[in-house]
Amino acid sequence: MAKVVAVLYDDPETGFPPKYARDSIPEIKVYSDGQTAPTPKAIDFKPGEMLGSVSGNLGLAKWLKSLGHELVVTSSKDGPDSELEKHLHDAEVIISQPFWPAYLTAERIAKAPKLKLALTAGIGSDHVDLQAAMERNITVAEVTFCNSISVAEHVVMMILGLVRNYIPAHDIVRKGGWNIADAVKQSYDLEGMHVGTVAAGRIGLAVLRRLAPFDVKLHYTDRHRLPESVEKELNLIWHAKREDMYPVCDVVTLNCPLHPETEHMINDETLKLFKRGAYIVNTARGKLCDRDAIVRAMESGRLAGYAGDVWFPQPAPNDHPWRTMPNEGMTPHMSGTSLSAQTRYAAGTREILECFFEGRPIRDEYLIVQGGGLAGVGAHSYSKGNATGGSEEAAKYKKATVKA
Amino acid sequence: MAKVVAVLYDDPETGFPPKYARDSIPEIKVYSDGQTAPTPKAIDFKPGEMLGSVSGNLGLAKWLKSLGHELVVTSSKDGPDSELEKHLHDAEVIISQPFWPAYLTAERIAKAPKLKLALTAGIGSDHVDLQAAMERNITVAEVTFCNSISVAEHVVMMILGLVRNYIPAHDIVRKGGWNIADAVKQSYDLEGMHVGTVAAGRIGLAVLRRLAPFDVKLHYTDRHRLPESVEKELNLIWHAKREDMYPVCDVVTLNCPLHPETEHMINDETLKLFKRGAYIVNTARGKLCDRDAIVRAMESGRLAGYAGDVWFPQPAPNDHPWRTMPNEGMTPHMSGTSLSAQTRYAAGTREILECFFEGRPIRDEYLIVQGGGLAGVGAHSYSKGNATGGSEEAAKYKKATVKA
Repeated sequence: MAKVVAVLYDDPETGFPPKYARDSIPEIKVYSDGQTAPTPKAIDFKPGEMLGSVSGNLGLAKWLKSLGHELVVTSSKDGPDSELEKHLHDAEVIISQPFWPAYLTAERIAKAPKLKLALTAGIGSDHVDLQAAMERNITVAEVTFCNSISVAEHVVMMILGLVRNYIPAHDIVRKGGWNIADAVKQSYDLEGMHVGTVAAGRIGLAVLRRLAPFDVKLHYTDRHRLPESVEKELNLIWHAKREDMYPVCDVVTLNCPLHPETEHMINDETLKLFKRGAYIVNTARGKLCDRDAIVRAMESGRLAGYAGDVWFPQPAPNDHPWRTMPNEGMTPHMSGTSLSAQTRYAAGTREILECFFEGRPIRDEYLIVQGGGLAGVGAHSYSKGNATGGSEEAAKYKKATVKA
Repeated sequence: MAKVVAVLYDDPETGFPPKYARDSIPEIKVYSDGQTAPTPKAIDFKPGEMLGSVSGNLGLAKWLKSLGHELVVTSSKDGPDSELEKHLHDAEVIISQPFWPAYLTAERIAKAPKLKLALTAGIGSDHVDLQAAMERNITVAEVTFCNSISVAEHVVMMILGLVRNYIPAHDIVRKGGWNIADAVKQSYDLEGMHVGTVAAGRIGLAVLRRLAPFDVKLHYTDRHRLPESVEKELNLIWHAKREDMYPVCDVVTLNCPLHPETEHMINDETLKLFKRGAYIVNTARGKLCDRDAIVRAMESGRLAGYAGDVWFPQPAPNDHPWRTMPNEGMTPHMSGTSLSAQTRYAAGTREILECFFEGRPIRDEYLIVQGGGLAGVGAHSYSKGNATGGSEEAAKYKKATVKA
C-alpha cells in the first residue's frame, strides 16, 4: 500500500463557509477546446467546498483509506525540519499545488527513493525539478485546463483594476474621503489601448477572447502561432519575439510557463523596451520577472502599475517588496484556486490517482514528464532543465494574522 | 455677456500628474452605435489632462474669456452658504457633473431667474429637478455616450472583483499575510454564472457585450427590447419585469437612470427575490437602492457582495454605512470621469456651449429637457417628476485627508 503526501495550504483563519450562502456553483463539463473536465469514477465532496486547504484534503481521505493507502496531509513544506522532509523517504506520491508549492528539488528527489508520481493539483509544475524527475523516471502530471479560465478572469480583472485605478480609489472610500480627483488622477479607460500577451496557450487565448469586445488592439507572441481563423476572428497581431511586442503595448500580460528560457525575462534591460506608463499583469509565475527590476520600474514611474498573484518564493516573505511598492494590485497566489477551480482540480487529482493505482494510462493532456522524458503537454510547454529551488527562501515567511 | 458657473470637484490633494508618465490616451472618434464623439470647433486642452477638477475648468476658461463671458469655477455647492448659492441670482448657465452634483432643486431654480441652460458634463441629470426646469423653460443637456464605455468597464471590473474576492485578497498581501484559504473562501469563477442588467441602454448593452465571452448566461430587463439580432448574437434572455429577473441571477447590475419610478427599486421587499449569495453592482445612481436595506442584506449574508461608485448624497457623508459594510467593493463616483472620459465630456461641454452661444441647435442626442418638455434622449430615458434633493445631506461631508 502506498504513502501519499498531500502538501496543501493552511485552513482559513476566519472560518468557512462565510456568513452568506451560495447554494451551488456552475458546473463546467467541457472546456472551450473540447477537452472534458475531470472524469473520476466518483467524488467524495460537494462542489464549492474548500478542498484545497489541509482540512479539505482534496476530498481524498475517505477514498484513499478505503483502498488501504496512507494519506499524509500537511502544510509544512519548507526547510529541513518540515513535515514534508520527514516523509520523503517512503512517499510514493507527492501532491502539491502551485499556490503553496512543495519545492521538489534534485536534493529532495534524491531523498525520495520510492517516489513515482509528483502530482500538481492545479497547473504549472515548475516547483518540480523536471530534469531530476526525468532522470529518476518519476511521472509528473498536472490537471491541465482545470483553472485556466479562473486565471484568465483574474488577469482581466487586474488589467481593468490597474488601468481604472480600482484599489487606490477603494482606499479613499474606506478612509472616509471623497476626493475624486485623487481617485481618477491615474484612472483611464481600457478602450483603445494596446494589450499584448506573452504566450497564447489556454490562459493567454482566454484572456484575448475576453478582451476582444473591449475594443482594444490585441497582440500576442508565442512560438506556436494561433490558427489564422482565430487571429482573424479576434483581430490579433502576432509578434515573432517578445521584445518586438513590448514597445507597442500599453498593457502586457504574462501567460507562459516558467522554465530556464523564461526565467527573469522581464528585467532592467527588457523593461527599457516598454512604453512609459505601461502596465504588467503576471499571474503566471513570479520568477518570470526580476523582482527588484520591477520595484525599480514602479518607483521610477516607468511602469504605471503591476499586478498579479505569483511571487517567488511562495509564500512570499513578509517583507517582499511587491507587497509595498507603489501602484501594485497584488493578491496572494489564488487565481487558480477559486472554490470553482478547487472543485475541478480535486476531481482531476482523483482521476489521476485512480489511473495511477489501477495501472491505467493517465490522460496524455495531464502529463508533463513520463518514461524519462517530457511527455503530453509537457513536451509542448516546458523545456528541459530546472528553474526551481526556493524552499529555503520560502521558509522565511512567518504567519501573519489577518482578520477578514 | 453671460455668467457661466461650473461646479467641479476639488483638485487632487496628492499632485498631478502622477510620477509615471503616460504620453497619450487612445482617441475615440465614433461610438459603437455610430454617434460621433464630441465635435467642438476647437479645444484648449491636451487629451489626458485633469479637466474635471477646479483647476482644469473643463478647459473652458481661456475660450469663455475670449468671448467676454464670465466663468465662475467652484467646488462649493452644498448648503445655503455655498459659492453656488451666491451666483444663482445671475447665472445663465450652470455646469455640473454627476460625480460632484450641484443639486438644482426647485427652490434653487426659483432663485435663478436668468438660468437658461443646465449642462451636465457627463451623463445623468437627475441632480436637476426636471419638472421645475420644464416649467421654467430651462434647457437641460448632457454629453450622451461620453463616458458610457468608461462606466461599462467599471461594471465588469467590479463584477469580477466581487466574484473573485479581489479587495479582501489584496488586503492580505498588504498586511504581510499569505493565508490563501482566507483569500479564496469567497472567491468564485464568473464562468457559468447568470448575470443580468436592469436596463440595456448604452451602458447596459456595453456590459453585456463585454461579458459575453466569459461564458456566462446573460439576462436583461428593459422597457425597450433590444433588436432580435442583438439578442441572438449575445444569447440574451429578456425579462418583462425586473422582479422576474432577480431570482435567476447570480449577479445583478443596475444601469438605468434615476427617476421617480426607479427610486429605491432595490429595497427589503425586492431583495427577498434575489438568490442567496447574489452580487449587486450599481454604477448608475445610489438612490436606486434603499441604503439601509442594502446594509441589512450585506450584514445578514443575503447578498455576497455589493459594489458600485454611486451614493446618495454625493459626496457621501464620512459615516455613510456603505463605506464599512462587509464585502463591499465601492469607489467614490469616478467610473465616468476617468482621464479618458474627461477628455470627451470636456469636448462635449464645449460643443454644447458653442451651440448655445451661437444660437445653433444642440444635438438632439444631448437634450434632456427643452422648450418646456422632455426632449431628445430625455424623452427616452427619463420620466416626469423629481428624484433629486440632497444638498443639505451632502453638506454634512467633511473633507477627509487621504494620502495616496
